[in-house]
Amino acid sequence: MSLLNETCTRITAVDRAVALAAQQQLDAKTKPRRSLGVLEDVACRIAAMRGTPAPALPEKAIVVMGADHGVAEEGVSAYPQAVTRQMLLNFAHGGAAINVLARHAGARVIVVDMGVKEALPPHPAIRSHRIGPGTNNFTRGPAMNRADAVAAIEAGIGIAETLSSEGVTLLGVGDMGIANTTAASALTAVFAGASPTAVTGRGTGIDDARLQHKLDVIQRALRVNHPEPTDALGVLSTLGGFEIAGLVGVMLGGAAHQVPVILDGFITGAAALAAVRLAPYTADYLIASHRSVEVGHRVVLDALGLRPLLDLDLRLGEGTGATLAMHLADAALHILHEMATFAGAGVSDTGA
Amino acid sequence: MSLLNETCTRITAVDRAVALAAQQQLDAKTKPRRSLGVLEDVACRIAAMRGTPAPALPEKAIVVMGADHGVAEEGVSAYPQAVTRQMLLNFAHGGAAINVLARHAGARVIVVDMGVKEALPPHPAIRSHRIGPGTNNFTRGPAMNRADAVAAIEAGIGIAETLSSEGVTLLGVGDMGIANTTAASALTAVFAGASPTAVTGRGTGIDDARLQHKLDVIQRALRVNHPEPTDALGVLSTLGGFEIAGLVGVMLGGAAHQVPVILDGFITGAAALAAVRLAPYTADYLIASHRSVEVGHRVVLDALGLRPLLDLDLRLGEGTGATLAMHLADAALHILHEMATFAGAGVSDTGA
Repeated sequence: MSLLNETCTRITAVDRAVALAAQQQLDAKTKPRRSLGVLEDVACRIAAMRGTPAPALPEKAIVVMGADHGVAEEGVSAYPQAVTRQMLLNFAHGGAAINVLARHAGARVIVVDMGVKEALPPHPAIRSHRIGPGTNNFTRGPAMNRADAVAAIEAGIGIAETLSSEGVTLLGVGDMGIANTTAASALTAVFAGASPTAVTGRGTGIDDARLQHKLDVIQRALRVNHPEPTDALGVLSTLGGFEIAGLVGVMLGGAAHQVPVILDGFITGAAALAAVRLAPYTADYLIASHRSVEVGHRVVLDALGLRPLLDLDLRLGEGTGATLAMHLADAALHILHEMATFAGAGVSDTGA
Repeated sequence: MSLLNETCTRITAVDRAVALAAQQQLDAKTKPRRSLGVLEDVACRIAAMRGTPAPALPEKAIVVMGADHGVAEEGVSAYPQAVTRQMLLNFAHGGAAINVLARHAGARVIVVDMGVKEALPPHPAIRSHRIGPGTNNFTRGPAMNRADAVAAIEAGIGIAETLSSEGVTLLGVGDMGIANTTAASALTAVFAGASPTAVTGRGTGIDDARLQHKLDVIQRALRVNHPEPTDALGVLSTLGGFEIAGLVGVMLGGAAHQVPVILDGFITGAAALAAVRLAPYTADYLIASHRSVEVGHRVVLDALGLRPLLDLDLRLGEGTGATLAMHLADAALHILHEMATFAGAGVSDTGA
């Protein structure tokens, strides 16, 4: 059996009884029942994902995958394609937003070249899993073939497995790839059965004319490739990107090892749609960090059935929203471990 | 001139030019302009509050004030009045949610007894600024007299001044007081010109019958006291609480010393309404941490013109939401200080 199939088979639903046991612990703490709202949900969900009612404070890592997109040549982005490579070097040197926010959140950053156009110089902070020098322009045919999609997914699975074996117990995911909101919009249109208009936005900041052009490009891609929604791997190879496929693998690998995965924005959300089509119980292991301003992200979150923890008009990607949400995940677990109980603190409990 | 008047006079509007200078720094960083959304707003607002385009990472403290409310005898809460005192002891022993979350956020917790019914034993972790053994039942007349309200406010100003002189540069505020959502609803109805129905909720968790009773109590209080909305000190003395008045003082004292103050939920929000009536520019120094499930909190935030950073169905108080927001404030300042610029990192900038 392939690593992909084997991994999908390993992903099982979380045990609701563990979540309930965590909630019972929270209900004994000195506060009105459920008064910490979503923070309590996060604690209980992480408990269920980890399979223990008192999960340890997590070792955290953010996996940021970068790749180039053939469709960039259609002029769908506000930035030149060279920026993908430049930003991966920026990640490697520690100067990007994700580096700053991950340091503050106590998370390692794993930078992965899944296939930028021009190969990067060897750098200790960049892992190379290059599938190719960027995808093909999907307005003329599939972005990649199925074998490449599987290879990219399995690279992501491998990274998640390695991190898990190194003790990482909370993963965040992030992306870098000029033109990748075009790919994410196309994927979301197909997976969520939405109109391209409803899921196509301004990405890094394009004007009205270019937004209309981007929409035309996506509609053309759907006409040319006529992807079959029930064939998740087919949709992903046709309209995805190497970094998106890699992120699908990180999610699958995380879920298979009971490691919670915090999503970032629209791109990682589109990858999550593919992941849950490949293995539905993956959704049990996903946490939505934030709702981005990118219009399609709402559609993604609705399709995933996830409520985002933050709504801060972010639209950067890189995993920045995921790192911000890590503070909330940590806070939820601190509450679970450290708060006094009604009985222990001598506080009257009326059960409210 | 009294300390209160002097403090109100010192509170001036923030300098928008400083916020603009901070935004210009952010615009040179390696990310699309404004792509960190509200996080950028927070960085710029804190810069303006502190009066410098590059404010240092803050020294943080949470001031949690507790007091009892005469109106508790009307049976408006799910918990007995003794819980106020029990919870202040819990704060002192470090076992409450606010202690756990403040430790995680790197904030000191300052616990203040503003007037619980039965005085607390001396404890090094509790500051006593008791105005009296709880307020009067405001369904029968004013909760306190004007002199007591001024004394409570000035105690809060003094605490903010002391903390500022000790190097604290970011304050959070929190409350503890059985029945204090009843006071906050009454205050909000008057200050925001809202119907009591629109601002009265379930507090720590009362049922439908008790909610109706609570509403009756608030309507009776408004009839008996007929407060004059333009007399902020009068409204506060009539319908407030010792901890609420104390928190007004912390906000005024913070604003007067250019120290940002992060609000918590409904109670601190009602206090903020009073503070901005006493000194309108106080609003420039307030950050709304979250939107609570308490129905009146929406009305408060609208009246203050503040967008909350979080929306997590919290309804605990104590400053818990404020501490969660401190992670975001820190993150915003880390971005301002640590991110590489386009020029420094060799990343193409198209100005998008």
